[in-house]
Amino acid sequence: MKKIEGGVCAPAGFRANGVHCGIRKNKTKRDLSLIVSDVRCAAACVYTQNLVKGAPIAVTKRHVADGYAQAIVCNSGNANTCNADGEQIAEGMCSLVEKYSGISAQDVVVASTGVIGQPLSLEPIAAGMEPLVKGLSEDGSLSAAQGIMTTDTVDKQVAYTFTVGGKECRIGAIGKGVGMINPNMATMLIFVTTDAAISPSMLQKALSADVKDSFNMVSVDGDTSTNDMVCVLANGLAGNPEITESGKDFTVFRKALNKVTTNLCRKIAKDGEGATKLLECKVTGAKTKQAAKTVAKSVIKSSLFKAAMFGADANWGRVLCAIGYSGANVDVSKVDVDFKSRAGVLEVCRGGSGIPFSEDEAKNILSQDEIEVLIRLNDGNGKATAWGCDLTYDYVKINGDYRT
Amino acid sequence: MKKIEGGVCAPAGFRANGVHCGIRKNKTKRDLSLIVSDVRCAAACVYTQNLVKGAPIAVTKRHVADGYAQAIVCNSGNANTCNADGEQIAEGMCSLVEKYSGISAQDVVVASTGVIGQPLSLEPIAAGMEPLVKGLSEDGSLSAAQGIMTTDTVDKQVAYTFTVGGKECRIGAIGKGVGMINPNMATMLIFVTTDAAISPSMLQKALSADVKDSFNMVSVDGDTSTNDMVCVLANGLAGNPEITESGKDFTVFRKALNKVTTNLCRKIAKDGEGATKLLECKVTGAKTKQAAKTVAKSVIKSSLFKAAMFGADANWGRVLCAIGYSGANVDVSKVDVDFKSRAGVLEVCRGGSGIPFSEDEAKNILSQDEIEVLIRLNDGNGKATAWGCDLTYDYVKINGDYRT
Repeated sequence: MKKIEGGVCAPAGFRANGVHCGIRKNKTKRDLSLIVSDVRCAAACVYTQNLVKGAPIAVTKRHVADGYAQAIVCNSGNANTCNADGEQIAEGMCSLVEKYSGISAQDVVVASTGVIGQPLSLEPIAAGMEPLVKGLSEDGSLSAAQGIMTTDTVDKQVAYTFTVGGKECRIGAIGKGVGMINPNMATMLIFVTTDAAISPSMLQKALSADVKDSFNMVSVDGDTSTNDMVCVLANGLAGNPEITESGKDFTVFRKALNKVTTNLCRKIAKDGEGATKLLECKVTGAKTKQAAKTVAKSVIKSSLFKAAMFGADANWGRVLCAIGYSGANVDVSKVDVDFKSRAGVLEVCRGGSGIPFSEDEAKNILSQDEIEVLIRLNDGNGKATAWGCDLTYDYVKINGDYRT
Repeated sequence: MKKIEGGVCAPAGFRANGVHCGIRKNKTKRDLSLIVSDVRCAAACVYTQNLVKGAPIAVTKRHVADGYAQAIVCNSGNANTCNADGEQIAEGMCSLVEKYSGISAQDVVVASTGVIGQPLSLEPIAAGMEPLVKGLSEDGSLSAAQGIMTTDTVDKQVAYTFTVGGKECRIGAIGKGVGMINPNMATMLIFVTTDAAISPSMLQKALSADVKDSFNMVSVDGDTSTNDMVCVLANGLAGNPEITESGKDFTVFRKALNKVTTNLCRKIAKDGEGATKLLECKVTGAKTKQAAKTVAKSVIKSSLFKAAMFGADANWGRVLCAIGYSGANVDVSKVDVDFKSRAGVLEVCRGGSGIPFSEDEAKNILSQDEIEVLIRLNDGNGKATAWGCDLTYDYVKINGDYRT
């Protein structure tokens, strides 16, 4: 498995583009993106579990109900959620794709991200669709990645090659965060493309299993968005024998998918709103895997722990506190905690009690931009990793006046 | 029921004091408090449900197991939690109370609040106990309230009179917040005194029922502390016929207790770490009371909603979002939302969709220091109120470097 360039256009037969159509006031920010495949693709999606769902989700569900799709259209700047005419607008976006690309509206996945509860006009999208389609290219992953960004500070792309049935396949993705991010089935918007041949049902199986350990283990702020969606399109152009059941090929595909999703988890957590640090919480020795996940998520979501990491303060008591209220069955008298970064490892807690450490060393280790919190529960074999970020002044600033 | 002065010393037969004994470095901050009754009291407590519990909680549980106590000792500046010798130190604090006051150590409730995981020395407490006991007075509620403050910016006291069985009774309390505050059985430290006569079992019944609608409905930061405790002492000196069963007298007592606890809920939320605003979320029309509570708590805990309130931004989509991921069974197409303050009422959402409003009016209404979020689910008779505060730069500042 090798990392390559090209994002969603790395797999054969995919083109992409992103333009500024006018949903956002800032003309230098792209706000409409399109990804298309030369041929129809097996399609799999997972969606937010928020009861308040963006209108595009209802439309996408109908369009992929048959297991296939050929394009993904997504705007930023407006979530098209809590609007009376939301589904009509989302269907309209798909029809505009059909009008200019010839791809059936029924084969279009549609997504929106931005402010909730403001009417979304089709006008700018109608005006932008022609240049958007005309500009589709195999080099278009970056502009597509930019077109779906909201408060993201960097575009998020990744791609890998892997081999299935003797054929080299490619898998790529773009994603956006970076607020209202909290594990609950699917978080954020993630669009994955692959030229591997795989049946719709096996693609869905792979995706549904993957998100449990990848995107569902990311939290930026504990708020589960209304518009989260992860979508994978597989067009089969790599020519491998179609994956239709579990086995060696499926295992390879799942590994490749997990490489892409884990990479994006780290990118999204690191670019969390206002974040200065990526926090990675690795829990081992839990009674069960679920207990490990519960503990890892509880720690990564603690506002107090996140603020301490912003201040490079080795306040491990807050880690213990978050373990204690997580709801997982933990013997707190067995818990060990270390902080780790590229500057070294700091041992802070053994058997549930503090041990002496150098505050200077602590500052040095915690001042890096990627921090691992290593929690050993010493009570079984369950393990899990969760990703998050620190809580900073800028998070408050970004969210104190997001709409204006 | 009338509000009166005097805090925990308002009821007959209670004295209190707070001193600086040296646990905190800042000599102007009191760090050790004592409340005593002239006679033994019926005692009831509720504790944090965090698995990581402060050592004082284990000791207090043993001391009130017989339903009685006569004194409460509490230090700030150190939580005495995750320390190998924690219980020994907590017992030592009670023995020191016995040594200087004559009250049996077995009748002492002990509490600690502050940093987790730093050893607590008995030395300063031993040195401070004599002046602490000598200075006990009927005017001591303020100094006792100050002695338990951590990041609190104001002392928290309240007292009311009420009538039971023809006798005037008094109930008073002191409390401290204001971080690591999240509903889970009991939150924060609250010490309530009353001169009403009530049996230990009825006192416990009243307290356990009350916290479900009072302290369990407060959230400052979503972190459930390791040391939370609410303790009520009832010394019976008002001379009313002892309340030993449900009925009119018990109902009056519960109302008086609820006056005190609700008052402290608002005080603690308003003084939440870094807070500039008290947020009060009132949910009506829920399918069940539990659904109303779940929705109210979800909204009050949302970091995005809290940051929007800091910015006086009427971003009601975040309220809908938090309702949607709360886990409660809600028909989102029926939801109405208003924002209310002393400056007026702003209608923002009807039937799950946005309605036009004036941004100027919104700014004006949301710039007040007490904001009500009124949510009507229009789907039943369940209702609930939750209290919280905005998320500000200062929350991050306070918690970015708490230990140093």
